[in-house]
Amino acid sequence: MGHNHTGLSDIRRITAPAGTPADVARTPRRAASAIERMFLRWLLGTMGNPPVQLVLWSGEEISISQEPMVARVHIREPGALRRLVLDPELYFGDDYMAGRIEVEGYFVEFFETVYRALQQAPRPGLARRTLRSWLARPRRNTLDDSRENIYHHYDLGNEFYKLWLDSDMLYTCAYFPSASVSLEEAQAAKMDHVCHKLELKPGHTVVEAGCGWGSLARHMAKYYGVTVKAYNISRQQIAYARERAQAEGLADRVEYIEDDYRNIRGEYDAFVSVGMLEHVGVENYPTLGAVVKRSLRESGRGLIHSIGRNRPGKMSAWIERRIFPGAHPPTLSEMMQIFEQHNFSVLDAENLRLHYGKTLAHWLERFEANADKIEAMTDRAFVRAWRLYLAGSLASFTAGDLQLFQVVFAHCSCNDVPWTRWHLYQDARHKEQTWNRVTS
Amino acid sequence: MGHNHTGLSDIRRITAPAGTPADVARTPRRAASAIERMFLRWLLGTMGNPPVQLVLWSGEEISISQEPMVARVHIREPGALRRLVLDPELYFGDDYMAGRIEVEGYFVEFFETVYRALQQAPRPGLARRTLRSWLARPRRNTLDDSRENIYHHYDLGNEFYKLWLDSDMLYTCAYFPSASVSLEEAQAAKMDHVCHKLELKPGHTVVEAGCGWGSLARHMAKYYGVTVKAYNISRQQIAYARERAQAEGLADRVEYIEDDYRNIRGEYDAFVSVGMLEHVGVENYPTLGAVVKRSLRESGRGLIHSIGRNRPGKMSAWIERRIFPGAHPPTLSEMMQIFEQHNFSVLDAENLRLHYGKTLAHWLERFEANADKIEAMTDRAFVRAWRLYLAGSLASFTAGDLQLFQVVFAHCSCNDVPWTRWHLYQDARHKEQTWNRVTS
Repeated sequence: MGHNHTGLSDIRRITAPAGTPADVARTPRRAASAIERMFLRWLLGTMGNPPVQLVLWSGEEISISQEPMVARVHIREPGALRRLVLDPELYFGDDYMAGRIEVEGYFVEFFETVYRALQQAPRPGLARRTLRSWLARPRRNTLDDSRENIYHHYDLGNEFYKLWLDSDMLYTCAYFPSASVSLEEAQAAKMDHVCHKLELKPGHTVVEAGCGWGSLARHMAKYYGVTVKAYNISRQQIAYARERAQAEGLADRVEYIEDDYRNIRGEYDAFVSVGMLEHVGVENYPTLGAVVKRSLRESGRGLIHSIGRNRPGKMSAWIERRIFPGAHPPTLSEMMQIFEQHNFSVLDAENLRLHYGKTLAHWLERFEANADKIEAMTDRAFVRAWRLYLAGSLASFTAGDLQLFQVVFAHCSCNDVPWTRWHLYQDARHKEQTWNRVTS
Repeated sequence: MGHNHTGLSDIRRITAPAGTPADVARTPRRAASAIERMFLRWLLGTMGNPPVQLVLWSGEEISISQEPMVARVHIREPGALRRLVLDPELYFGDDYMAGRIEVEGYFVEFFETVYRALQQAPRPGLARRTLRSWLARPRRNTLDDSRENIYHHYDLGNEFYKLWLDSDMLYTCAYFPSASVSLEEAQAAKMDHVCHKLELKPGHTVVEAGCGWGSLARHMAKYYGVTVKAYNISRQQIAYARERAQAEGLADRVEYIEDDYRNIRGEYDAFVSVGMLEHVGVENYPTLGAVVKRSLRESGRGLIHSIGRNRPGKMSAWIERRIFPGAHPPTLSEMMQIFEQHNFSVLDAENLRLHYGKTLAHWLERFEANADKIEAMTDRAFVRAWRLYLAGSLASFTAGDLQLFQVVFAHCSCNDVPWTRWHLYQDARHKEQTWNRVTS
């Protein structure tokens, strides 16, 4: 144990107190049955016996691993255990959210430990997988559905996101060219990294699919002299984006369009999409490819930035149901379905997994600093759900369960491409490479 | 027209005279039939009407495109035309080799024009594709088969390859960090690029699958202080490699093993394979992945370098039959079959397509300079076959039909990976970036 892959020294201290059960009353109940204990041992076994202790409502303790424990998981009610039998992935989250499950110890490290154990574990049985895949089956993203899904997540209110995102409101993986940069600097560095990969030149036209609160579009217009059409289906984000473009005097160069990526029209020098693909659905990748095909000039450059996976798999059932309905992190071979049918040439793929871990550590730190304010805006279950989502995602990236891919591409016949990637590393922020590795 | 993507100004002049029909006697024969002329028009049509003129044995000329012609293709006998009906891809090569088809004009540009036209053309009819796929069906690579295939190509004799490869005998894509580097320098730069991607440190152990004449293994040992086990099934290449390691005082740090990659044993800090994957066969990719899985240390780094494609497709039927039996250039999604089953994390993928175009231009230039010597060692048909193969391959890369992928990967849970790719671009050879684009 003892690794801290985030580079933020106090991330465990922040999350640990929130997980301690001291502040929750414990009601004494019946002892666990032999079957219940057997199930919990089996559950730990299928998870690869992580160094985690289970504590039942009765006070009984169950653990298998002989290693020092990373966390104690309190199961407060027989009902919570029954739901774990049905679908541990989904109901762990729901019962944690409701306070019927509590984690005592290092919260992020607990998830990282479990995810690492699962990577080595025998695969869960067919029956449970079948059941789970039924429960977690992704919905088809028709134009209407995806509008609903995205509202579910993003239209919580800009005020909420302002409390824990950077000042430019980027809700995607940042890029840390060196150890000392802040979250704000790392988000600016990410936007520059993307612009350098797209080789933007003054006068270029850019189309962005899924623009969030519009920062990248403004950044491109402001620092690279391009004009941008940026698409998003979230009304609240578009309104915010327009307001900021107006305030920054960029309204003549950045147009925000409240519409689906499938309705993109026109031809552009660059196509960019940062953090939308997770919501597109693999079955729509060839359609996305067709949109890019018709909207990218012969000499143009494209970039798609997405959370991904090493091997095919669903988003956690709980995240898929409670946080990101319809979300799917693709493998690189799944992503290639965007490109292969249309004979695009992939020029460059970069994996920024650890950068997302560090980004999430920043977000979680800011979230915890504002947890009281957020609870006042929403409720306790919401705060717990969001903490679980941020901490669990952080652990997914540092444990290697999730990846972050940036893929650069061009039309197959375009020879006007750089000979090397040297130009991406001329940024002064890269010079300060005193860290090259995660601290341990 | 008029583009020269190789950066070598005289590549067209070199190849043109060899393709002129002036030195071949033309026997007057019967006029072409209406059906024959119709077929040739249809053939030009399926190829997307490239600016190419066909000249029949009778002197009749056929062309469709209104653009200035890039080349005139002389079909000297009715038999050559009959074979084009059967399988144009295969028999164009065979009849060119035998001198029954001749290309007058710019040889490389002719292929590039045809490949670019084909990219835009309607797909050839089902019957022809079925026939062709039957003729060109790849053989399964059992251990014995692949030994035979590789001999077919590589054991032509080291003397032959010495006449047109660089002095270190690298028969894979070079890396040109700047415009002024020679082929020799570009091959050294390629080896350094690979070593930097693998993050070699003194004392590391490396295993190489498919080591050719062994240059990369020697380079790693000599400049990076590592010890290498390098596998190859070609006896002649292994003998050459051992001799050079001995002469350079590296025999204690580089061991060349005459064996198949599937027989790799031991655990290493790095796994590298440059230009072997094309011969492995997609059906064996999971096996290759399993070999890497067991031979790469938990903290280790892997790199696979291979010719590839944007979309699934076979090697040209002629190249597959006459030059590289069993060869297949994978798409990135096909390559992912090596990694996904074993939960490897892909860190970086780079496309060096234009570098291979430039490498082939160097090879073709040296080949032509030694064509007389080579003809004395072999025969005229061999020289024509090899010229066709080098020029056609060059055009495949510059037209965007073939790609060159370098994929870097690690075990899923390894966090000891660089934060950025900045370290790859500290090499002084990258500084001189006066060219960033192909000349036109």
